[in-house]
Amino acid sequence: MRQRMKCVEVAIVGAGAAGVGVGIALQDLGLNNFVIVDRGRVGESFRRWPREMRFITPSFYSNGFGLLDLNSVSPTTSPAFTLGEQNPTGLQYAAYLEALATYRHLPAETKTNVHSITRDKNGRFLLRTDREDYEAQYLIWGTGEFQYPNRCPFVGSEHCVHTSCVQSWAELSGSEFAIIGGFESGVDAATHLASTADRITLIDRNPIGISDDPDPSGSLVPTSALRLRDLLDRDKLVLRPDFHVVAVERTSDAFVIRSHADDRVTVSSPPLLATGFLGGQTLIQGLFENDPEGFPMLTPQDESVKTQGLFLVGPKVRHEGLLFCFIYKFRQRFAVVAAAIGERLGVDTSDFIDYYREAGMYLDDFSCCGESCEC
Amino acid sequence: MRQRMKCVEVAIVGAGAAGVGVGIALQDLGLNNFVIVDRGRVGESFRRWPREMRFITPSFYSNGFGLLDLNSVSPTTSPAFTLGEQNPTGLQYAAYLEALATYRHLPAETKTNVHSITRDKNGRFLLRTDREDYEAQYLIWGTGEFQYPNRCPFVGSEHCVHTSCVQSWAELSGSEFAIIGGFESGVDAATHLASTADRITLIDRNPIGISDDPDPSGSLVPTSALRLRDLLDRDKLVLRPDFHVVAVERTSDAFVIRSHADDRVTVSSPPLLATGFLGGQTLIQGLFENDPEGFPMLTPQDESVKTQGLFLVGPKVRHEGLLFCFIYKFRQRFAVVAAAIGERLGVDTSDFIDYYREAGMYLDDFSCCGESCEC
Repeated sequence: MRQRMKCVEVAIVGAGAAGVGVGIALQDLGLNNFVIVDRGRVGESFRRWPREMRFITPSFYSNGFGLLDLNSVSPTTSPAFTLGEQNPTGLQYAAYLEALATYRHLPAETKTNVHSITRDKNGRFLLRTDREDYEAQYLIWGTGEFQYPNRCPFVGSEHCVHTSCVQSWAELSGSEFAIIGGFESGVDAATHLASTADRITLIDRNPIGISDDPDPSGSLVPTSALRLRDLLDRDKLVLRPDFHVVAVERTSDAFVIRSHADDRVTVSSPPLLATGFLGGQTLIQGLFENDPEGFPMLTPQDESVKTQGLFLVGPKVRHEGLLFCFIYKFRQRFAVVAAAIGERLGVDTSDFIDYYREAGMYLDDFSCCGESCEC
Repeated sequence: MRQRMKCVEVAIVGAGAAGVGVGIALQDLGLNNFVIVDRGRVGESFRRWPREMRFITPSFYSNGFGLLDLNSVSPTTSPAFTLGEQNPTGLQYAAYLEALATYRHLPAETKTNVHSITRDKNGRFLLRTDREDYEAQYLIWGTGEFQYPNRCPFVGSEHCVHTSCVQSWAELSGSEFAIIGGFESGVDAATHLASTADRITLIDRNPIGISDDPDPSGSLVPTSALRLRDLLDRDKLVLRPDFHVVAVERTSDAFVIRSHADDRVTVSSPPLLATGFLGGQTLIQGLFENDPEGFPMLTPQDESVKTQGLFLVGPKVRHEGLLFCFIYKFRQRFAVVAAAIGERLGVDTSDFIDYYREAGMYLDDFSCCGESCEC
């Protein structure tokens, strides 16, 4: 069995924005003995977005003046330029990632399902897949969240439809809907449903649409806040903030959504779950230790505190309370991970780090992050 | 006469994006003995945009992760945050500038018309206005372009309407229009006119909408290119590229637009001029020397090569063929100008320069600018 394994220095799991980006960073550092494994295609999660969904972070080709396109995953590319779009759809963004993977000849093994990940006595990672198996010195986990929807947040979740499973909002018919989860994806769902529905109830355990947090991870982005206001102005929307759903029950002709205070919302069509995503780390659950809030505990190099040689890239990275949940945030850690691996492999990383830092893609000092606006 | 003059270290002419931004830079350097003079209000040019016109550079509050909002004019603010908009209108952007001026207590003397600018024997600048007069050691010119439309590019221009003079596209009636100038403002005009007009002819001396230049100064931004394509798909638009207008003639019932090759376009309503803007430096024409392409010749500190102590800020700044014609470009020169003045006044500028450089608002090395995209 052992002989049939392919040896690589680094295995990356996930060929999305994080996997492609960190793969390019490895290449830029001169490391080429790696593989990117994904059970789907390059950018699979983006391909599965509802057709109408678009990036909330705008792309613009400002690279030439030191402002890297917010949705770029490498220092010299721009989705705005490649796609000719300001707010790309998921399908368009997948095309950008695919173009990048092709152009850079990334060693992406797509449609390859990882069955198990174990470690041998030397600390090497053994990846069993339904195609080739791999033995890797270092493992970078970059599977993202979208393919791991939070489907079962309460009793009766099986009566609901998670927003990530909707191919197009146009396919849902009905005059009334209830959406559980009032943040970005809930507001996006409400906007598209409003073109046919008369009445949409938006439910959240927290306040909806009200936040003074200037950081887009903590409040609706301006375009979403405007869409929310527009729906309210058009009398399409009922907000149910501070409504903590504990169960959904199906009756003969309706669905009843119940809160912890036994408030009820009744709706004729299956409630929609805009409840976000789980980490996607189930395969390697034992290799990460989570903090009390459920985020993997990481070293300053984004290495698992529990498993040496295992790194995390993507939207679940968190440091000092800062969540790297947008592409323009988590891409600033690709080079940190690549450099950590490069140094252990004896590669000189100084020029590489300068290059990425210059491009705005190397963040190792969080002191200036998350500051609020003057006015 | 001399006694009644108010003495300042620096006079800034123009309270738009450039004037407000460089004023804040002076403050951040500890220089407070200055005045900003404008014949209109703060952000006057933006207030005069057609009501429907929006920024083509998207705003996003990514400041907290080292990516300053593309339309910010100071290191710690974001129009996306202040206005709650991704692509603000001119009126909204003026509100952002006004909020900034108020918050920072900028010494803005608005509704003050500068009649003449002369120099005394000590090289001081004497500004005569219809209100207070000023004597300044240094003069920063930041009047922008929008209030100086290129109204007379050819014979018969008087029969035309410049796009910057349109308050709202909804006020123009007619079923057919011709627009002379096929770049950003021409496409914007066509888009809004198309909601009522049946047929719009877009005329340009160059190719229209086709460019491989990734820099937004040299090609339509993605949103505009998409709007152009949409108009063509809807059969609303006729393109007349490579049509060099030499004259517009008025007949009894129409307007005839003639090209250098004696091609003709006939239209029933006054042709619209989307022919851009002049420099606005007429008041100080003698103090700048222009290069053969009409751009003021500047030192590496953006000082007039002809007049010591006179600096230029805003979209007419050009170095090594790079045009700083977007806010995210020309704002990177505010601190260069402020530091040049500060050094001559004996102020230590090193912390200030570090602060602005860190914020992405200090560009003195153009070698990495304007590079093209990998893919």
